[in-house]
Amino acid sequence: MYRERSVKLGKERSAIREIFEYGNARAKEIGRENVFDFSLGNPNVPAPDCVREEIERLLREMPAEELHGYTSAAGAPDVREAVAAYIRTSFGVPMRPELVYMTAGAAASLTVTLHAVLDRGDEVVVIAPYFPEYKVFVEGAGGVVKAVRADGNFHLDVPAIGRAIGKKTKAVILNSPNNPTGAVYGEGEIAALAALLEEKSAEYGSPVLLLSDEPYRELTYGAEVPYVMNYYKNSVVCYSFSKSLSLAGERIGYIAVSPAAEEAETLFAAVCGAGRDLGFVCAPSLFQRVAAKCLGKTSDVSVYAENRDILYRALQKYGFDCVKPEGAFYLFVRSPEPSAAAFCERAKKYELLLVPGDSFGGEGYVRVSYCVAKDTILRALPAFEKLARSYGLVK
Amino acid sequence: MYRERSVKLGKERSAIREIFEYGNARAKEIGRENVFDFSLGNPNVPAPDCVREEIERLLREMPAEELHGYTSAAGAPDVREAVAAYIRTSFGVPMRPELVYMTAGAAASLTVTLHAVLDRGDEVVVIAPYFPEYKVFVEGAGGVVKAVRADGNFHLDVPAIGRAIGKKTKAVILNSPNNPTGAVYGEGEIAALAALLEEKSAEYGSPVLLLSDEPYRELTYGAEVPYVMNYYKNSVVCYSFSKSLSLAGERIGYIAVSPAAEEAETLFAAVCGAGRDLGFVCAPSLFQRVAAKCLGKTSDVSVYAENRDILYRALQKYGFDCVKPEGAFYLFVRSPEPSAAAFCERAKKYELLLVPGDSFGGEGYVRVSYCVAKDTILRALPAFEKLARSYGLVK
Repeated sequence: MYRERSVKLGKERSAIREIFEYGNARAKEIGRENVFDFSLGNPNVPAPDCVREEIERLLREMPAEELHGYTSAAGAPDVREAVAAYIRTSFGVPMRPELVYMTAGAAASLTVTLHAVLDRGDEVVVIAPYFPEYKVFVEGAGGVVKAVRADGNFHLDVPAIGRAIGKKTKAVILNSPNNPTGAVYGEGEIAALAALLEEKSAEYGSPVLLLSDEPYRELTYGAEVPYVMNYYKNSVVCYSFSKSLSLAGERIGYIAVSPAAEEAETLFAAVCGAGRDLGFVCAPSLFQRVAAKCLGKTSDVSVYAENRDILYRALQKYGFDCVKPEGAFYLFVRSPEPSAAAFCERAKKYELLLVPGDSFGGEGYVRVSYCVAKDTILRALPAFEKLARSYGLVK
Repeated sequence: MYRERSVKLGKERSAIREIFEYGNARAKEIGRENVFDFSLGNPNVPAPDCVREEIERLLREMPAEELHGYTSAAGAPDVREAVAAYIRTSFGVPMRPELVYMTAGAAASLTVTLHAVLDRGDEVVVIAPYFPEYKVFVEGAGGVVKAVRADGNFHLDVPAIGRAIGKKTKAVILNSPNNPTGAVYGEGEIAALAALLEEKSAEYGSPVLLLSDEPYRELTYGAEVPYVMNYYKNSVVCYSFSKSLSLAGERIGYIAVSPAAEEAETLFAAVCGAGRDLGFVCAPSLFQRVAAKCLGKTSDVSVYAENRDILYRALQKYGFDCVKPEGAFYLFVRSPEPSAAAFCERAKKYELLLVPGDSFGGEGYVRVSYCVAKDTILRALPAFEKLARSYGLVK
């Protein structure tokens, strides 16, 4: 009676959401402080002061009907110019405001871009493990996901990517710092990927786009995040302020089309058309202006760095197998038994809520989100130790 | 190289946007105060005080990481309950929070609902003249628009609607108060439409949904706006706070599924699935909470009422042919010459910016938006009079 795909997507809770709901129910039974919920990627560090200050200033200084009124579909002109200037200054790319489209966050950046470029049956390469909604977004836009496994350290396996690209491949989605692995791709692998995409674009006579999903760009622990436009011309950056400014619920981000992209203006027009098609109208107006004033600022990332260090050291000590994250706020831990789901079930007995990697295309692993209070991590450590002991991991 | 439909939608500016841009350019030449722009539906009355007070209170009282963090995809639980309670109290419908889905405004309410219910080739009946983006939204969701002309006073022609409904008809979109005509459908015609839809649903063995697009519900000048759920069970209300609270740029609204709808829970699941598919994630979190606290409040609607009276009286006096609007902030005026576009071109000579009705499926008419300063209307009256004189309308 209703659209089957939509009913299905609406009924199947994501694995993450499922665990989150379990955690809420469990918290009611035994108290929130006794449940160690590592399931969600909701920033726990408050937005930087500039966010609040800017909201207050805008309320004071800008007429309400203008502040809360429609902006142009692509965003307020001064906001687009501020974003373009930031990209010019920070990354040395000659970005123009005419190629910046303000969006309702990372998901919107991706769905709008995919609806701008995909025709039915086009293929999109993603690097596994990957954020599970990529599959939803690509298929929703009529495309097909081709997952390519990352290497053992969760970095790019460029030859494998090359084997996955065919004449129907329209784009490759890159996510660095990575959810769920915390990997940050280095200059060498980005350059190698760029060379591959140049070659494949030439081979098939049509550009293979590089879509860089960058909600975690500023959340790194020393690693540099190369700016893809400096390596490959047919790049689109899908940015979000959700994590950098701890504004996940406010839905604010942008799409930036590389000025060097083939028919960049046509690609940008397609972005505008797709936004219209999906019903976005314009990105939330107050937060467009807030974001423009907070460009380059971040929440206190040192909190995540400290969490990472405590958790990584402890998990290593208890005998768990995991790669040290270079960015984002996730640890991808190898399950001590073949089934990650079974491992997560056992973790629940110790009130530890982890997410099986299966829905990320990372079978045999679990995701541990450490965007939680330091105190939660400290209190959870004995539970992790008991869990390790139950597998005979602790020496 | 990119998706043809998206490129086309991105390149073709809407008629409204075209005139808006012309107005901006013209304002630079001769000064903003000398251009009489009646093209846009951007509320000019500031948001009511509760909006600012509530933002300030939330910034003061709610931890930033919670205030700006993700809510559940369907909205924050207390916000959904507040909306459901408002619907129960105001309209006597036994609404449950489980059937309320917070959205990023009216356009999102519509695209999400359409993607929830339409399969490729399904038909959607709209009443002409109609908001032009309906066609974009329906076609973007894979559907086909069937336009049915309103009667001479812009009210429902129920028999004509009956003739347009066939076995592929999935929904009828209603918009009352209406953009662009200002018509408010009365109880009689809504009841007649409901009876028709019951009959057609029975005839084809599948419910024909009634989608009520209600951004202008509170903007009326005395007329009652019947609540469709009280007349027809298979109803979905697509609401927006854009006009009632003057928050058009903030993108906040909701979808409410009638508890009496067939398989209401399945329909609601499809709504959730479609929202996920399109990349909405959740409605902007701060404004979800603001809207919940300002339910039933409105901007100062008396400003629009006064504008309507001044403009309607003057246009009548100058000999223009138009129906007095019962709601919204638009006047739909018959063009004195067959081509509305030619009429709008001539109006430009008097610095009057009007929108041809053609893109609304209302050939031979123009839309005059009176959500502008009263002073603009007063200063524009001589221009309207000259325009009328140029057609020999003024006696």
